[in-house]
Amino acid sequence: MTELTRRTILSGAAAAGAVMTVAPLAQAAAPLAGRQAPGFYRYKVGDYECTSILEGANVFPIPDTFVRNISKDEAIKAAEAAYMPKGMLVVPFNPQVVNTGSKLAVFDTGFGPGGTNPRIGNMVANMTAAGIDPKAVDIVILSHLHPDHANGIKAADGALVFPNAEIKLPAKDWAFWMSEENAAKAGNDMMKNYFANVRKVFAGLENKVTKYEWGQEVAPGVTALDTNGHTPGHTSFAVASGSSKVLIQSDVTNIPEFFLRNPDWHVAFDVDPVQAQATRHKFYDMAAAEKALVIGFHFPFPAIGYVEKDGAGYRLIPAAWNPAI
Amino acid sequence: MTELTRRTILSGAAAAGAVMTVAPLAQAAAPLAGRQAPGFYRYKVGDYECTSILEGANVFPIPDTFVRNISKDEAIKAAEAAYMPKGMLVVPFNPQVVNTGSKLAVFDTGFGPGGTNPRIGNMVANMTAAGIDPKAVDIVILSHLHPDHANGIKAADGALVFPNAEIKLPAKDWAFWMSEENAAKAGNDMMKNYFANVRKVFAGLENKVTKYEWGQEVAPGVTALDTNGHTPGHTSFAVASGSSKVLIQSDVTNIPEFFLRNPDWHVAFDVDPVQAQATRHKFYDMAAAEKALVIGFHFPFPAIGYVEKDGAGYRLIPAAWNPAI
Repeated sequence: MTELTRRTILSGAAAAGAVMTVAPLAQAAAPLAGRQAPGFYRYKVGDYECTSILEGANVFPIPDTFVRNISKDEAIKAAEAAYMPKGMLVVPFNPQVVNTGSKLAVFDTGFGPGGTNPRIGNMVANMTAAGIDPKAVDIVILSHLHPDHANGIKAADGALVFPNAEIKLPAKDWAFWMSEENAAKAGNDMMKNYFANVRKVFAGLENKVTKYEWGQEVAPGVTALDTNGHTPGHTSFAVASGSSKVLIQSDVTNIPEFFLRNPDWHVAFDVDPVQAQATRHKFYDMAAAEKALVIGFHFPFPAIGYVEKDGAGYRLIPAAWNPAI
Repeated sequence: MTELTRRTILSGAAAAGAVMTVAPLAQAAAPLAGRQAPGFYRYKVGDYECTSILEGANVFPIPDTFVRNISKDEAIKAAEAAYMPKGMLVVPFNPQVVNTGSKLAVFDTGFGPGGTNPRIGNMVANMTAAGIDPKAVDIVILSHLHPDHANGIKAADGALVFPNAEIKLPAKDWAFWMSEENAAKAGNDMMKNYFANVRKVFAGLENKVTKYEWGQEVAPGVTALDTNGHTPGHTSFAVASGSSKVLIQSDVTNIPEFFLRNPDWHVAFDVDPVQAQATRHKFYDMAAAEKALVIGFHFPFPAIGYVEKDGAGYRLIPAAWNPAI
C-alpha cells in the first residue's frame, strides 16, 4: 500500500510494482469539450431575481504602478499569495442584472461586445446564455464612467447594446469627466485616455442619459450610495426586496486579494486615493458588522460574498454556490 | 446627497425628497428565468480536461449528532458563522470527470438520477449540460462505498448509469462493507443502512467490479492514495499530467466550514473517527505546504481550492473561477 507522503503526491506516479488494471478498449476516446460553462449565476433578493454576469477576466503582467503606495515586489508577492499565475494579475469583471418583476435593470456593462481581446467582452453572450435579452433591458445603471463599466453600452460598431434602456449615470461623474477644465489638467496618459473615452462612448447620447444623485432610487428598491473616491461620482447600490438586501459595491475595491486584504493600498485607477481608502474602511466596517452580502465588480465570478475583518484588513468569504435559486 | 450610513443601507429606501426618474413604459416586463446556471465547471490539469459536476446540495436541520464530539449548540454556531440558513446545514456533492484524452473517468457518482429529492440526483443532467455522455465513460472510480458516492452507478430503476464503464472500488472498502461479520456488528441504524445499501447497489455486480489497492494507477496518471479513517478503504487521488497536479480528496473532510476549520471534529459518518482526524492533519499539512489544488466532494461548487493553515485548523481558499479553461 502506498503511504500518503510528500513523495507520493509529488511524483503522481503509481508505486513501483503496482498492478494496473485496464479495461478492454470498448469504445472510442471521448472528445475534449474545450469550452467553459456559461458565465452566469442566479440569486434571489426577496422577490427579485438577480443574475451575476461574467464579462471576463483579464490576465496581464503586473504593471510597475498597479498599486501606487507599495513596491512592485510587494505586489508580485501578493499576487503569488493569491495563487495567481507567476508575475501576473487576474482581474475579473462582473456586471449584474436585477429583474424586479416590473423592471429589468443592468448594473454596469463591461467593455462591450465585438472587441479584439477574447478574455473580455462576453457580457452579452453570457446574458444570452442566461436567457436575458439585451433588448428587454429597461434601465442601464452605471456606477461610474471608467471603460470597463461604461463602454459596454455600445458594441464595437457603435450600436447601442441595450437599445430600449434608459441610461442612468452618476451626476458627479458626468460633471467631472465631461469638464474640459478637468480634461486639460489630466496628469498622465491613463487619465487623458479616460477623458477621451467618456467623450467617445457618450457621443450622441449627451442629451439622452439620465443623471442620478446619491440617495435616489435608481430602480425599484435600489438606492444609490455615495462611495466616492475611486471616482468623484463613484456609486454603490443597496438592492432591497422584502426583508432581503444585497450591496452592489462596484469598485469600492478593485481585486479583493489586494485591496480588501489591504484596504490602505491605492490602486492606480483611484482619482482620489485617500478618499477611496476612507470609503473602503467605512463601507467594509459596515458590511462586516451587518454580515451583508456584497457583490464586487472585480471579485472572482460569481462575485458574491461576505466581508470579515481580519487584522488590519478584511477577508472575502465567497458565498456558497446555491444549485437552487 | 445620501451619506453611506448604517441607516441608509438598512432602510434600502430613497432619501426623503429624492426625485425618482422613471423612463416611459416602453416594453413589457421581462419574465423571471426561474432556473440556475448548469452545474459544471471545467479546469485543465496539464493535457487533461477535467469537469467538476454538481450533483446537488442537501439542506436540512442540524442533526443532534452531526458532529460527535461537540455540542449541538456549537454546531449551530459554526453553521451560522458559515452563513448557512439559520439552524440548517448545507452539504454539497461534487463528483469529478477527468478526460485524459484516451480515457474518460468519473470519480464518485452521487446518489443516482431519478430519486425524489430534487436537491440531489443531478449529476447526469449536469454532465449532459457539460457535453459529457454517460455512455462514453470508460472508468467509474469510487473513493469509498457511502451512498452519496456509490449509489449513482445505478438509476432509480436499477439501470446502469454508465453502462460501458469498468467500475473500480477500493478493495479495503469492499472487504469491510461486504463482510457479514461486520454487518452483524453494525451498532446503529446508520451503519445498518450503509451495510444494506452496499449489498443492494452492487447486487448483480459482485463479479464485475474491479478492486483497487492504494498505490495503483486507477486511470492514466491517477494514483490511489491511502486516506483511510472515514471508511477503512477511503481513498483520495493524485491526478497528474505533465507538470500539473490536483488532489481529489474525496471525504478527507465533510463540509470544510466544519471539518477543515476544525480538523479535530468528528463527523457522524466516520467509521474510525480518530484515524480520520489523523488523516486530516496529515493530508492538509501536506496540501498546505505544497500549495496543492484540492478538490473536495463536499466543498461548495465548483469545489476546487487551496488549503492554508489557520490557527489550530485550516482554511479553504476557493480557486478563482477561470472563464477560459
